[in-house]
Amino acid sequence: MNNTLNEDIKIIKDAKITSPKGYMAVGIHSGIKKVKKDLAIIYSKEPALCSAVYTTNVVKAPPLLWCQSLTDNNEKIQAIVINSGNANACTGDRGYNDALTMAKTAACALGIDEKSVMVTSTGVIGAYLPIDKIKAGIKKAANELSNDDKSANDCADAIMTTDTFSKKVTVEIYIKGEKVTISGIAKGSGMIHPNMATMLNFITTDANITKEMLDKAFKSTIDDSFNMITVDGETSTNDMAVILANKMANNPVIEKTDDEFEKFKNALFYVTKKLAKDIVKDGEGASKFMECTVKNVSDKNKGRVLVKAVLNSNLVKTALFGQDANWGRILSAMGASGAIFNPNLVQIKFKSASGEILMYEKGLPVEFDENFALKVLSEKDIQILIDMNEGNSEVTGWGCDLTYDYVKINAEYRS
Amino acid sequence: MNNTLNEDIKIIKDAKITSPKGYMAVGIHSGIKKVKKDLAIIYSKEPALCSAVYTTNVVKAPPLLWCQSLTDNNEKIQAIVINSGNANACTGDRGYNDALTMAKTAACALGIDEKSVMVTSTGVIGAYLPIDKIKAGIKKAANELSNDDKSANDCADAIMTTDTFSKKVTVEIYIKGEKVTISGIAKGSGMIHPNMATMLNFITTDANITKEMLDKAFKSTIDDSFNMITVDGETSTNDMAVILANKMANNPVIEKTDDEFEKFKNALFYVTKKLAKDIVKDGEGASKFMECTVKNVSDKNKGRVLVKAVLNSNLVKTALFGQDANWGRILSAMGASGAIFNPNLVQIKFKSASGEILMYEKGLPVEFDENFALKVLSEKDIQILIDMNEGNSEVTGWGCDLTYDYVKINAEYRS
Repeated sequence: MNNTLNEDIKIIKDAKITSPKGYMAVGIHSGIKKVKKDLAIIYSKEPALCSAVYTTNVVKAPPLLWCQSLTDNNEKIQAIVINSGNANACTGDRGYNDALTMAKTAACALGIDEKSVMVTSTGVIGAYLPIDKIKAGIKKAANELSNDDKSANDCADAIMTTDTFSKKVTVEIYIKGEKVTISGIAKGSGMIHPNMATMLNFITTDANITKEMLDKAFKSTIDDSFNMITVDGETSTNDMAVILANKMANNPVIEKTDDEFEKFKNALFYVTKKLAKDIVKDGEGASKFMECTVKNVSDKNKGRVLVKAVLNSNLVKTALFGQDANWGRILSAMGASGAIFNPNLVQIKFKSASGEILMYEKGLPVEFDENFALKVLSEKDIQILIDMNEGNSEVTGWGCDLTYDYVKINAEYRS
Repeated sequence: MNNTLNEDIKIIKDAKITSPKGYMAVGIHSGIKKVKKDLAIIYSKEPALCSAVYTTNVVKAPPLLWCQSLTDNNEKIQAIVINSGNANACTGDRGYNDALTMAKTAACALGIDEKSVMVTSTGVIGAYLPIDKIKAGIKKAANELSNDDKSANDCADAIMTTDTFSKKVTVEIYIKGEKVTISGIAKGSGMIHPNMATMLNFITTDANITKEMLDKAFKSTIDDSFNMITVDGETSTNDMAVILANKMANNPVIEKTDDEFEKFKNALFYVTKKLAKDIVKDGEGASKFMECTVKNVSDKNKGRVLVKAVLNSNLVKTALFGQDANWGRILSAMGASGAIFNPNLVQIKFKSASGEILMYEKGLPVEFDENFALKVLSEKDIQILIDMNEGNSEVTGWGCDLTYDYVKINAEYRS
């Protein structure tokens, strides 16, 4: 995956989930939360192709099971209903019926098939949805769908839980002369009573693309973006990412892995990577943002294992918080990852806006200037650069430090 | 593995690594650390059978490579030299030569073969040993070997790094009328500049037992003790556990899996479990001790995966610190572990000296009294009881909570 921004991709400053042609959105307060917006709908005038990935957690929330039944059957999707404040997880048959009720209510209100309505929830687990409030809310929201700026912003706000900022991105590319737009919104790893880190990502595009190519592009960008971030190494019962493609850009169909496909994939990767990095930057209690790159590794899967081991290590994360150039913890985390490698070939560097510093090379520590190391690590954005010297693959992932505030947020939210 | 203490096992209150017949020990200050004891020797008058397990970390410290070369060749062991304050890790060829020098120096001083001398180090990584100080220290220590109380205590003290108490245990059993003694000492997960959690366990016994049966007993007890504890889920470059058996109890040889073998194995399990639990109780910054049992699971390996996922989860660990009855995080950690199970069969309870409380059953949350839950979780020792309702195996593991002090110790030790 190309990490550098392709000049063909235009970043739209005023990002809106409704920027691609044919989409409308809405975000309202339905009464699940006390005051804040808690219910959103994303709607496509035309039934859209849909590609989605779901949590790998064995414990899956009922709304995910509903969505999976739709995507397993390649249903075209016209609406996504999202509520925040209650995850409808660990709620058994009643939870599944509630998810189905949400789909049916939206289908009626919008005059579409219930099998074209995805439903997602995020928030408290182990509590039943206030389904009457939600039904009323869906009817109200359906009437307020719009493609104006306010509705798009309300939608992005309504899916948040403890996120401190809304995450949104819009890009434009040209496919054989036709403008194609891709937008995304996300909610991140903010956790809520009783606390699960749920990641939700919704992407809209007006691209004309085959289902096969949409799946291929989405899968590949997901692997290098949402699947390469970590706040505390755990997957939630409700994690999902979904893309809708409604073909309304009228570009000649993208149907094989040609240059146009690559252009689309790169633009989509920009969107997913931007959302992924924003999720990490909003990680609970995080004070530093950490980018870890493993280069010259023998294969990408091994690189992913190594990058995640470093990003997930509590010892690396606390060292980063303490601004300590502790390469030993990085090497040890790599060694404990299960990946097989020769430590004598490895090189480890830290890098930030203040400079780059070599810590470890050829099996031996490198003497370094402690003051310069502290300067490099005092920045907010830190890169960990690992050279395996054994192959040609490269993998990058993103994480954050482990702070007092992480412990505070996750231990004391009841007090 | 039987968790209850067999009546045949007598716990000796005044535990000493030299309690089994034919062992001597010593602990001195050699100058690696500023003031505290930093060099120990455990010595057996007779060459002893030896069984050992080493870290699974790909990055192994040079002294471990030396020890492995001995145990791979089934060498009999007469001495173990341990230094604290410097781990001799990530030190390349020079580090290996230093380890070899330690073995040779001890062999000369003790008049034994260098291939009967194990060498282990714990402390700072990425720094070369002050080998001249250590050589002088080994010669001095060899002259002071003794089986008195002070020497045994000094030995247990000299292997500590940031441990807050020394970990030692002695038990006696009778094998066909002959008293057999097993003793162990350990250093725990206290971390040191530049910080790796090293676990060292040294066990002595005078049992007369075949190598095959010794390996079998040790392997099985390790799997259910040292391999079932976690402080932060990482293995160090220097972790090892070793048992010496010098046959001096003169019991009829234990040579098959009969009742006498079971008696020996249960006693050894008591020793390894006691050391393992003490290591966790001394976990960095820990305020609570957590025992997690998964019962009625379809197989033990799956049970181990589930127990470790729960014990390693930062979300579970912070909830425990916050005294929050957060069963959702437990179920989610299990779901994210990679183990396949049906959440609708699972039952989750918390238990402590204050009582037992059911949280989740048959796929649904159970209503509970928040005040009673807080009372249960306000104890220092907390049990998490998980019933999978799918099989007949049972696994128990031990961990601790994640506290402000953990972050402090691991982030701020330089300041």
